[in-house]
Amino acid sequence: MFESAEIGHSVPKPEFLAREAVLREALLKAQYDLLANKTFPVIIIIGGVDGAGKSETVNILNAWMDPRHIHTVAFGDMSDEERERPRMWRYWRALPPKGRIGILFGAWHTDPIIARVMERTNDGDLTRSMDQIVRFEQMLADEGALILKFWFHLSKKAQRKRLKALESDPRTTWRVADTDWERFKLYDKFRGVCESALRITSTEAAPWTVVEGTDANYRYLTVGQSILDALAKRLADGKPAPRRPAALPEPAIDGRTILQSIDFSKTLSHRKYQTALEKWQGRLNELSRSKKFRRRSAIVVFEGSDAAGKGSTIRRITGALDARFYRVIPVAAPGEEERQQPYLWRFWRNLARNGRTTIFDRSWYGRVLVERVEGFCAEDDWMRAYHEINDFEKELVDAGAIVTKFWMTITKEEQLKRFKLREDTPFKRFKITEEDWRNRDRWDDYERAVCDMVERTSVKEAPWVVMPAQDKHWTRIEVLKTLCRRIESAL
Amino acid sequence: MFESAEIGHSVPKPEFLAREAVLREALLKAQYDLLANKTFPVIIIIGGVDGAGKSETVNILNAWMDPRHIHTVAFGDMSDEERERPRMWRYWRALPPKGRIGILFGAWHTDPIIARVMERTNDGDLTRSMDQIVRFEQMLADEGALILKFWFHLSKKAQRKRLKALESDPRTTWRVADTDWERFKLYDKFRGVCESALRITSTEAAPWTVVEGTDANYRYLTVGQSILDALAKRLADGKPAPRRPAALPEPAIDGRTILQSIDFSKTLSHRKYQTALEKWQGRLNELSRSKKFRRRSAIVVFEGSDAAGKGSTIRRITGALDARFYRVIPVAAPGEEERQQPYLWRFWRNLARNGRTTIFDRSWYGRVLVERVEGFCAEDDWMRAYHEINDFEKELVDAGAIVTKFWMTITKEEQLKRFKLREDTPFKRFKITEEDWRNRDRWDDYERAVCDMVERTSVKEAPWVVMPAQDKHWTRIEVLKTLCRRIESAL
Repeated sequence: MFESAEIGHSVPKPEFLAREAVLREALLKAQYDLLANKTFPVIIIIGGVDGAGKSETVNILNAWMDPRHIHTVAFGDMSDEERERPRMWRYWRALPPKGRIGILFGAWHTDPIIARVMERTNDGDLTRSMDQIVRFEQMLADEGALILKFWFHLSKKAQRKRLKALESDPRTTWRVADTDWERFKLYDKFRGVCESALRITSTEAAPWTVVEGTDANYRYLTVGQSILDALAKRLADGKPAPRRPAALPEPAIDGRTILQSIDFSKTLSHRKYQTALEKWQGRLNELSRSKKFRRRSAIVVFEGSDAAGKGSTIRRITGALDARFYRVIPVAAPGEEERQQPYLWRFWRNLARNGRTTIFDRSWYGRVLVERVEGFCAEDDWMRAYHEINDFEKELVDAGAIVTKFWMTITKEEQLKRFKLREDTPFKRFKITEEDWRNRDRWDDYERAVCDMVERTSVKEAPWVVMPAQDKHWTRIEVLKTLCRRIESAL
Repeated sequence: MFESAEIGHSVPKPEFLAREAVLREALLKAQYDLLANKTFPVIIIIGGVDGAGKSETVNILNAWMDPRHIHTVAFGDMSDEERERPRMWRYWRALPPKGRIGILFGAWHTDPIIARVMERTNDGDLTRSMDQIVRFEQMLADEGALILKFWFHLSKKAQRKRLKALESDPRTTWRVADTDWERFKLYDKFRGVCESALRITSTEAAPWTVVEGTDANYRYLTVGQSILDALAKRLADGKPAPRRPAALPEPAIDGRTILQSIDFSKTLSHRKYQTALEKWQGRLNELSRSKKFRRRSAIVVFEGSDAAGKGSTIRRITGALDARFYRVIPVAAPGEEERQQPYLWRFWRNLARNGRTTIFDRSWYGRVLVERVEGFCAEDDWMRAYHEINDFEKELVDAGAIVTKFWMTITKEEQLKRFKLREDTPFKRFKITEEDWRNRDRWDDYERAVCDMVERTSVKEAPWVVMPAQDKHWTRIEVLKTLCRRIESAL
């Protein structure tokens, strides 16, 4: 994999100057076309060995193009705000919006590679991490991003020479840290691990280009030309045809679905409700204050039919919590900044730190519910969303979040009754709109979408709880109970 | 100030229940009106002594209203991302957008009060901090925010009783920390300092309501009713008439301005330019890598006539810096989320951590330039912006930022020449638009605005450098030199 980057590539100065003049003008033009076109972001990832000219190349790219529209981010040590959220949070924060170029300096590949070299993980862990990265990058590409990854390589001999040269020049000696030499001792090990990592993560959606780092002219031109070619091609051709996601299973031949087997008969008297409410709210409060919870977080998702009582149920949960440590995120159509990013971005930005509870009133499942049914996104897009959402929730769970998802459901008749009641009650009238009636007309389509959703995204660590919501008292207690038990067993 | 909150206010339960029923419905309705109206945010600040029922009140407010549209934020220890930015950054992050309610739990008043009680500061420092707060809150109010501040009070006797009661009940004992008792020992001192602080910061724009904390019913109703009254009044009356900012001085009677006394004659040959460029870029690079700079930051503002060469000058600066540690922020019209916040919000969100350089290509000065001249905001709004901007930059400087502001200027004839050149050069044509020609028609208005701006916002710690930009070579070197010298003398 690295052999072709150890053969002494170089470009003589006169040739460099001639090509540079043409290249930078073309790059600048392509950058402005991207900015005007504004349909996709460009993500450039820079990785590779120390001393191979990574920073210099990034600086040159910023000099050749208009640095106002390039967002260069270097990932050093994590801040405490980053440490208390899922691993990928810091990278989501750094994604460029459509029309812009983001240069990520040592991105999501770095940590797993170093962990493997230092033997904190084994080969299986490395493969799993790289598989996750492949899925993540595929998602970015499916969302439209143009991803270009450059790996700067030096042979062992060349690296030793380069580090020594940097060290002996007083102007550059600061650039060689002790850790660089320590890493150099591990050269062979690094090489092996990186080779595995690059092999797995070099995909059609996000290929690696290995660049020999010895000669500055060569590496600048190679990287610049690759970016120009890919950018020009994409601007000319548009987004490549999407991968065809796996087909949905046909409905069961007996026509029975999970929603049809719900028992709507359960009720609870007002008196029993009052006692139970106090008991379970008290329990939830205790759990949320427990020491163990400080290093965890709870994420509760509410989806459901219109008028199923999501709002009032959520208030029974928040009533048990300290307002300083929870947040309810009502999810409506995405805003302007959010539309410039992958669709999960707006949920990532709302993830809370440890010790907090975040309640989503509607959620990322809009992708496979309203967006699917109303045709707000293409079929391929919502079809791939199932596994993207599973990946997303896995990251939440891996970071210690306790994830619970409620689908609140009522019968079609009950919904009609509640809609009419809302229309007849002055202070409830704002809760019912034309849209609710329109959604109701598509009841069967939504039912199909819900069944597919539950089937494809209910996993042990982040289960769907299909909750009959016909009797409000019974439902609220059941939700509180379920939540308490989930948190209890997780702590 | 606190006497009327030590007289044993209380509300009997039956009265509470009757009033609560009416109040919560009215509050909920007002909240939805606010949400629909979406013209201003509500900022509720909660302060006061420990054990006076602050959290319980915040929880009740969240229960009475729709918690999905309330953003409650508690400010504990600073995160490292907050520590490396100006003190107010964490509060700007927490401001609610228009239409929403933000409950800030222990906000900007807390730290200065504690610092004074602990004798880390003196009376003069306290007064200065409180004056800053008054100006900040006035700015928020002028930007439309409805600010309500509640101070929860207990007499010394009542506080002792309350802490003991909390401590002896196993369900609430966790709520009393050792620090609470330590603070209690300082009760009298706290009382004195808080009295001064409240006196200064109780203004018409953001008044304090002192609430006796002994009786839960009383404090819930008092706070709830105050919020309802203020919210209903504001929704009915609209924004109060703005304060009239100080008038601008008349132009000097001899008609001479700072822009007319500029010496446009300086030039630099290409050869000298090359040598000087290398020298000053090297110097800037060294400075940006110096150890001392890691705890500081540099903020460079570029404003100037169209075609004065801001972009190309910025590239000469970035060319000297490591792309990982600078960022260029191009400022255009505010986006959707930005329009829901005070106008300085979009600059606060882009402030970098220590050790970084942020270059603003156009800036917050748009308020007193394009917004003034084009009438995008009311006269009162841009008139008050001068001292708001001064306050903002003072916060930057206080946090260790080295602030430098360049006004790049060319003659009207030179601009015409450059416009025409841009129109005639294919790859420069995107740089010239109808708007540039329109702006040019208002040359004199802009000139007046620039003179006022420089006169009112050039201060020693954040000076305006009026830079003749007729000769590009000379200008670029002069900008680099100025910047180096500013950083050098600051470190």
